[in-house]
Formats: sequence, structure tokens, C-alpha cells
Amino acid sequence: MIFEGSEKKVEIIVSDKLNLRSYDQDFYKNLVAKSKATILSSISSKGCDAYLLSESSLFVWQDRLTMITCGTTTLVRAVEFLLEELGKKSIQAIIFQRKNEHFSDLQNSTFYDDYQRLKESMPGVAYRFGPKHEHHNFLYHASIPYKPLDDDFTSELLMYDIQGEAKNFLLDPHQTATKIRDFFQFNRLLEGFEFDDFVFEPYGYSMNGLRDHYYCTMHITPQEISSYVSFETNLPLDAKTQSLFDFLIKRLRPKSFDSVAFNCEMQSFMPKSYHKKTVVQHKLDIGYDVRFCHYFLESDQTESAYRF
Amino acid sequence: MIFEGSEKKVEIIVSDKLNLRSYDQDFYKNLVAKSKATILSSISSKGCDAYLLSESSLFVWQDRLTMITCGTTTLVRAVEFLLEELGKKSIQAIIFQRKNEHFSDLQNSTFYDDYQRLKESMPGVAYRFGPKHEHHNFLYHASIPYKPLDDDFTSELLMYDIQGEAKNFLLDPHQTATKIRDFFQFNRLLEGFEFDDFVFEPYGYSMNGLRDHYYCTMHITPQEISSYVSFETNLPLDAKTQSLFDFLIKRLRPKSFDSVAFNCEMQSFMPKSYHKKTVVQHKLDIGYDVRFCHYFLESDQTESAYRF
Repeated sequence: MIFEGSEKKVEIIVSDKLNLRSYDQDFYKNLVAKSKATILSSISSKGCDAYLLSESSLFVWQDRLTMITCGTTTLVRAVEFLLEELGKKSIQAIIFQRKNEHFSDLQNSTFYDDYQRLKESMPGVAYRFGPKHEHHNFLYHASIPYKPLDDDFTSELLMYDIQGEAKNFLLDPHQTATKIRDFFQFNRLLEGFEFDDFVFEPYGYSMNGLRDHYYCTMHITPQEISSYVSFETNLPLDAKTQSLFDFLIKRLRPKSFDSVAFNCEMQSFMPKSYHKKTVVQHKLDIGYDVRFCHYFLESDQTESAYRF
Repeated sequence: MIFEGSEKKVEIIVSDKLNLRSYDQDFYKNLVAKSKATILSSISSKGCDAYLLSESSLFVWQDRLTMITCGTTTLVRAVEFLLEELGKKSIQAIIFQRKNEHFSDLQNSTFYDDYQRLKESMPGVAYRFGPKHEHHNFLYHASIPYKPLDDDFTSELLMYDIQGEAKNFLLDPHQTATKIRDFFQFNRLLEGFEFDDFVFEPYGYSMNGLRDHYYCTMHITPQEISSYVSFETNLPLDAKTQSLFDFLIKRLRPKSFDSVAFNCEMQSFMPKSYHKKTVVQHKLDIGYDVRFCHYFLESDQTESAYRF
């Protein structure tokens, strides 16, 4: 079966009159159902509630939420639900992102369809980061004046075609969450985080981690035909976080990867063994400086064709 | 308007009991209509008839035909029509290729759909050359024992994101066929060929060239959002043909390109300024050695996001 690992993501920021953490579990169950996903489990820290979903993750802070869904989920429906339930007046910012899919013909909508729907709910603008022919990321944001907080960073690593030891390890149908956490040395590299994770049948892995108001999340679809691993966090990009990203790339040895950074910079510490194919930078009207890069390993071998 | 430049292509070889050149114009008009294209014009040489289509090209020799269509054409329907009209018993080989599209959600079918239909008409196998996430080429061939003739070569160059002088030149709405031929120095580089070409409104260009049984064809969609130029030929890859390919790449300065070679080798003379991202080689059961490579220029600049 073909599974689309590439994610859609929305971040919604609300006014201080609302507290998103005060909404009950049923509210979030309904929200998640709108995108055709379900809640598997949840954990909470002082600053955040993290829901592990059948298709990725939902994080809820007092003033904002981040929802990430993969597969053929309909995340735009969840955004529409939120706008109705919360009231448009309480919305301070909406940022909706969507990676170009590998199996776009299997999707329920294109990004362009999503953009048309979002615009109907809330006027906004849309961008494509990266060339149409290559890896790229779409982004819509509502046209509401906004200024991000000083510590509002996000960094994402989207890794394609995992190779070597990691590939076989992740395809093992007897894999366990504990072994995967050890493999990625989460306890060392994400010190102080509480984890909630899940191993899918026959393989695949999702992880949410929380520490105070910091989150991290990892999603793995190790399928032979299109292996994909995503990792993202709102940790500041200090030396420790940099070494975490470096470790992940070296561990997974992806043939190529994207980096996506909001109000921070990832280029300076990416492994030198990768070539830069795409570098896009754009300052959004709502104050976020967004950088999208695509990196890859030069081919050193001739491969066989894939037979269907 | 979005236009899909990437092509579908079929080559059909028939037994010596048939002469494909003996079928009349109406036959080929009907054939082309099945794929939702029309014939614009045609030329003939001693060995071949070449039809310029509203969406690419059709070449007819006594024992084979090659049909190339782009946009949202339905080339599989044309294949089905041919099998019915010619009779399956007279078919010696069918090779159907399809490049991954840039706007796959606009297509009438996926390659997988096409493969299912083709298999119903004629049992066969299908391959993907290149990783699912990256530029790749799909290929189906009928499972009929076959041995290619000694001089059966094809080389294709598929160029993306044209840059520099060529970009502006090709986007000029007052462009003429003569000026485009001069720009690519066809008279010098394709000596002895007769040309049939067409400039589309507001831009875009198609060219067929014939010399004895040799053909060449070029299709240009210079659209800002996804410029694309394809060139292919059955000329042997001697020094002269190599310098033609080299000239085209230097003239067009594509950010990336694919090379596709049947029973020949293009890697050795590709410009060193390009990095090799993908190299796939596969010997088909029907005797063709197929090589697919993807090359690109390392990014030396930060670009802005594209705003919708």
C-alpha cells in the first residue's frame, strides 16, 4: 500500500481572551476527526498538551496550536472547524503549510484547492518555496497584521530515501518504541523531554516530546518505495539542537532532505557532504522570516530501475 | 494557464508484413485524435513521415512509429486504437514511457492507470527509473520476445528551468520560427535535416527534423512557472551529435535536466558543471539497455518565494 508521508501543517494563534488548553478532549477529538484522523494518546507538560494522532500530531498551548497531518488527511476542514468554533475575531494568525506530495494524484485536494477554501474563510496570501519541478513547500497565511514573539522559532527537517543501517532497522516488523528511542538517542539528545510514541503495523513510528513549552515531533514512514522521516521542534537552534539535527541526518543518511526554518537559520550547520539544490528565503508580511532549502547527496552509484 | 510540458511517449514496432507508411492521413488523424491532439503539419523523407502535433510529434517509419504527446493528452487511447487497427499479432514491440508530471493532479490518468490499461491489451511489465521523490521516468513494455536492430539508438534530453538569455528569448511573444532555428543553430548542428516547426501563441515552439531515417524533435514550453525543453533523436551519438547536446545545454542553461538513453551512453559527455543526482541503468528483457540520469546546477543564490 502506498502511504503519503509528506505533511500538511497548520499553526493558529489566538488572542489572549482565549485559552486553547481549556477546551475539553471532545473538542480536540472533533477537530482531529475533521481532518479524518484520530487521537491515539496524549501527554501534557506545564506549557503544552501533545496529542499523538493516527496521522501525525497536534500540539496545544494556551495561545496557539500546531496540527500536523499526513496521508490523505483533510487538514483544511479542521481549520474551518476551528475558525467557526473559536470565532474569526479571536484569530491572530493562521499559517498553513503543505509539502509537495509524492503521490499527489491520491490526495483529496491540491494545495491550490486548499488555498481557495482558506481564502473564503479568511483572506490571505499563498507562496511556493522552491521550484515547481523540485521539492518545494507551499505556505498560506491569513492577512492579519501580526508580530511574532521573540522566542517563536520553528525548525523542520524532512528527510527522503533513508539508507544504510537505519533503513533496515526501521523496516523491521518487530521493532519497538524503546529500541527506536535508543536508536535515535532521544534521552541524551532531548534531555528532560517526556515522550509519547507509537509503532505502527507493520512499521512506521510517531513520537511527540514535551519539555515545558518546547515540543519536538518525529514521524517515520520507512516504506521501501518512498521512505520519509520528518522531525520538527520549537527549540532554539543552540549547539545542542544543532548536534541533534546533525545526528539525525547522519543516523538516517537520507539521499536528500529539506530544511524549513521560521525565524532561525539552519544552513550554517548542515553536513558538508550534502549539496544545496534549492535555497529560498522570504520574509512574510506577518513577521516570519521563512527559509526553505533542499539538500542531497551526489549519486555515487548506478541503480536499477524499480519494477512494479 | 498551467501547461504540462512533460511528455508521454510510445514506440511501436510491427512485423515486416505491415508497412506503417502505407496507411493514409485519415488513419493518423484518427490515431492522433484518440490522444486528444491534432495534426498541424507534416514532412516526409525517404525513410520517415513526421507529423507535427498540437501537442508534440508523431514519426512513422515502415516498421515502427514513435508518438510523443504532452499536456493532458491520453496517449494510452492511441495505443489501444493501434492495437485494434493493426492487430495484436503484427506487434513486435511496444514501449510506453511517461515522465513524472509537474502538475500530476491535472492529468487524466496516472502512469499506474495507464499501465493497468496497457496490460489488459497486452501483457507487459513496468519500471520506474529514478526515485519516487525526484525526477523519474516510467516505462512499460509488452512482454513479447524482441531483439533491437544494431542501429536502434534513442537519446533524449529533458531540460527544466531555463535561465539567462534563452529564457527571455523564448518568452518573447513576437518570436519567429526562423529566429528560433538560428538561435539553436539547427542548420549547422543538424546539417542536411529538413525541418517542420511551429511557434505557438503567446509562446512555445515545436520542431520536427528529418534526414533519411533519422529524426530529431524539440518541444519548448518556456512558461515562467515551469519552463521545459525536450530534445530527442535517433542519431548515433558521435562527436557531432555530442556537440549538439552540449550546445543545447549551454544555450538553455537549465537548472536541471534528465538524460534518457536507449542502447547508448550519454554520461561521458555531459557538462562537468552539472552534478549527477540520479543514475539508473536497466537492461530490459526486450534487449534495450535503458539509462536515466538526472543532473542539476548547485544553487549559488538565495531565491524569493513564488507568490500566487
